[in-house]
Amino acid sequence: MTMDTGLIFHPYMRPGRTAKQTFEWGVQSSIACDKAGFTTMMISEHASQIWENIPNPELIMAAAALHTDNIMFAPMAHILPHHNPTKLAMTVGWLSQILEGRYFMGIGAGAYPMASYMHGIKGEAAETENLNRMVRESLIIMEKIWKREPFWHEGEFWTAGFPEEEEPQTEEDEQHMLANYAPYGGAFPEFAVTGFSMNSPSMKLAGERNFKPVSIYSGLDALKKHWEIFSEANIKAGFTPDRKRHAVSHTIFVGDTDAEAKKEVMEGPIGYCFDRYLIPIWRRFGMMDGFAKDHGIDPLKADLEFLVDKVFIVGSPDTVVDKINTLFEQCGGWGTLQIESHDYYDDPAPWYHSLELVAKEVAPRVKLPGN
Amino acid sequence: MTMDTGLIFHPYMRPGRTAKQTFEWGVQSSIACDKAGFTTMMISEHASQIWENIPNPELIMAAAALHTDNIMFAPMAHILPHHNPTKLAMTVGWLSQILEGRYFMGIGAGAYPMASYMHGIKGEAAETENLNRMVRESLIIMEKIWKREPFWHEGEFWTAGFPEEEEPQTEEDEQHMLANYAPYGGAFPEFAVTGFSMNSPSMKLAGERNFKPVSIYSGLDALKKHWEIFSEANIKAGFTPDRKRHAVSHTIFVGDTDAEAKKEVMEGPIGYCFDRYLIPIWRRFGMMDGFAKDHGIDPLKADLEFLVDKVFIVGSPDTVVDKINTLFEQCGGWGTLQIESHDYYDDPAPWYHSLELVAKEVAPRVKLPGN
Repeated sequence: MTMDTGLIFHPYMRPGRTAKQTFEWGVQSSIACDKAGFTTMMISEHASQIWENIPNPELIMAAAALHTDNIMFAPMAHILPHHNPTKLAMTVGWLSQILEGRYFMGIGAGAYPMASYMHGIKGEAAETENLNRMVRESLIIMEKIWKREPFWHEGEFWTAGFPEEEEPQTEEDEQHMLANYAPYGGAFPEFAVTGFSMNSPSMKLAGERNFKPVSIYSGLDALKKHWEIFSEANIKAGFTPDRKRHAVSHTIFVGDTDAEAKKEVMEGPIGYCFDRYLIPIWRRFGMMDGFAKDHGIDPLKADLEFLVDKVFIVGSPDTVVDKINTLFEQCGGWGTLQIESHDYYDDPAPWYHSLELVAKEVAPRVKLPGN
Repeated sequence: MTMDTGLIFHPYMRPGRTAKQTFEWGVQSSIACDKAGFTTMMISEHASQIWENIPNPELIMAAAALHTDNIMFAPMAHILPHHNPTKLAMTVGWLSQILEGRYFMGIGAGAYPMASYMHGIKGEAAETENLNRMVRESLIIMEKIWKREPFWHEGEFWTAGFPEEEEPQTEEDEQHMLANYAPYGGAFPEFAVTGFSMNSPSMKLAGERNFKPVSIYSGLDALKKHWEIFSEANIKAGFTPDRKRHAVSHTIFVGDTDAEAKKEVMEGPIGYCFDRYLIPIWRRFGMMDGFAKDHGIDPLKADLEFLVDKVFIVGSPDTVVDKINTLFEQCGGWGTLQIESHDYYDDPAPWYHSLELVAKEVAPRVKLPGN
C-alpha cells in the first residue's frame, strides 16, 4: 500500500483577503486536488481567527460538490458545542447525500476561548471537561436523528427528538412523509478527530470510539506517541488499529529542484504565514519544543529557515521521497499525508505544481512499512 | 417602475429525487434565472417535508455564488428556533460577504410541528407565541453578533456573547485579531417574512419592523388585506410603505400560446405536484377557500383545471400580461413576482422558456399603478 495524499485547508489566508477570495480559493483548491488524484480535503471551521477565516466549511464543500468526482470532504472539525445538534445532523446528512458518500466528519470541542464565548460558553462551562460533555451529548443526539427512530431527549445542554411517523396507508399519505436527511446510504459517517499535543486526549478518544485519528505534525516523538495512544485504546476497545486510517497534516512543498523549493517556501506565501502568524504562535504556546528537541536546538533559535531545512518536507521529488521514507521508518508510517494549504490565491501555479508532484511523483514511492 | 421577476424554490421535487438531483436543480435554476434577468431567488428551509426537501438553503446559495452575477439570494426562511443564533449569524454574515451583498434574509418561526419536535420544541413550547419569542430573542443575539461590540446575553432560550478585543499594539498583534463575519459592508441584511393567511400576523410584524413583506398568493382578498395590514403597521411605526418591496409568490407558466401553456401545466410537473401534493393539502387546511370565493364556486369543486384557468397565471405572454395587469388593478400591484419553482429536472427546456418569457416579455409590460 502506498501513501495517499490529501489537503487540509485552514486556510491560512493573509489578513485583508475578502470572504469571496477565501471561498473561491477553497473551491479552486478542491477542484485542483480532485484532478491531481488527492483522496481527501479537510476544511477547518473557525469562529474567530483572522488567518483561519472559514466559519462554515460546508459552504465550500457544497460549492465544490458538482465540480469534483472522487475527492472526499471532511469538516475538520465541526465544533459541536457551537451547533444545534439536530440542525447539524441534517446538514451533515444532506451534504453527505449530495456528495454521494464522499464525506466524513471531523468533530471537535473548540480550542479558542473567544469562539466559545461567542457561542455562550465561558468560565467553568468553557473548560475542557465540560466542552467534552457537550461533544458527547451532541453525538448522541445526532446519531439518533440519523437513525430516524422515535425518541425524545432532554439533556444537559440540548433538547431534541424524532417524531412517530405513521405508516402510509394510501398513495396520498406517501406524499406527506418525512424527508430523509440521514447520511448517504443510511450509515453514520466516519468520525475523525485531530490531535496535536504529546499526550493528546483526542487520540485516546479516537482509539476508544474507533474514530479516524488525524495528527497535526508537532515532532517525531509526539507523532509516535499519538499512534501508541490511539492503538492501545483501539485494541482495548476491541478494534484492530489500521495505520491506513491515520492522517498526518504537515507542511510540504515540492519543486523541480531542492533550491527552487526552498526559495519558494522562504520567500513565498508559506514563509509569509509562518513569519507573521504561525512562528509567533508556536513560540508563545511551546509548540516549537518538539521540533527543537528532535534536532537538539534551543526552541528560541528555531526560525523559518530551521523549519524549512529540518521540519517541513521541502525539496525535489527525490528529496521529499527520501525525507518521508525516513520519517516512515522512524514512526511506522501513516495512511494519508494531509498537506497544509497556504494562500497562493494570487498566483497558484507553483502551488498546484507542488500538489501535482506530491500526488504523482512522491506518494506512489512512499510505502507503509510491512505493506 | 415595472415589475421585477424572482423565483421561489421550495422546491416541490417529486418523491424519489435524490439530494444531489434536488441540489443540482437548485444550482441550475439559479444560473438560468440570473441569465434571464431575475432579481431574486428565495430558497426554502424545511426539516420535514418530502416534497420540500432542502434543510440548508445556504448550501445551494454557496454553490451558485461563483456562477451568478446579479441575482440576490434569500433563505425563505431560516427557521430561527432551529439554529444556534451565533452560528447562524456568522453563516449569514459570511455568505453575505461571499455574495458581496447579493443577500437578504427571510426569517420564520416554523410551521411544521414535526420539524419543531426534532429540534426539541413540543407541547406548549411549540405554540406560536413561544416560537415568536424565540424568533425575537434570536434576532437580538444575531444583531449583536453582527455589531461586533462586547456583550453577554443570558436569555430565555440561548446564551451568547462577543468578547472584548484589545486594540492591536504591534503588527504582530494584528495577525491575531478576530475575523469579521458581519454581513457585507457591515450593515444588517434586509429581513423578510412570508404571510399566507388572511389576517397574517407576519404582515403586521413586517410592517412594525420594516421587514420586506412576502405574500404567498392565496386569493385576491387575502392579498389586498396583506398590504393593508403591512402598510398600516408600517406607517404607525414611522416608515413609508413601498409597494416595490412587496413580493408575491404565485404559480405562473408562460408558453408561446395559451393552449400550449395550459397543456404543459395540466400534464407536466406542475399538475403532477398539485394533484398529488398541494391540492390535497390546500383542501385539508382550507387553503382553497380564498380561490373558490374569488370565483364563486364550492371549494370542494376546485380542481387542477379550475386552478389553471382561474387562479394560476398561465398562457401566452399577451394573456399573462393581461392577467397580471388585471390583478394589479384589483390589488394595487406589487414589486416582485416570485415564481413558484417546480420539478423540471428531467427536461428543463419548457420551464426555462417560461422563465425567459416572464422576465423578458411579460414583466417589462407590467407597471405598478401610479408609478
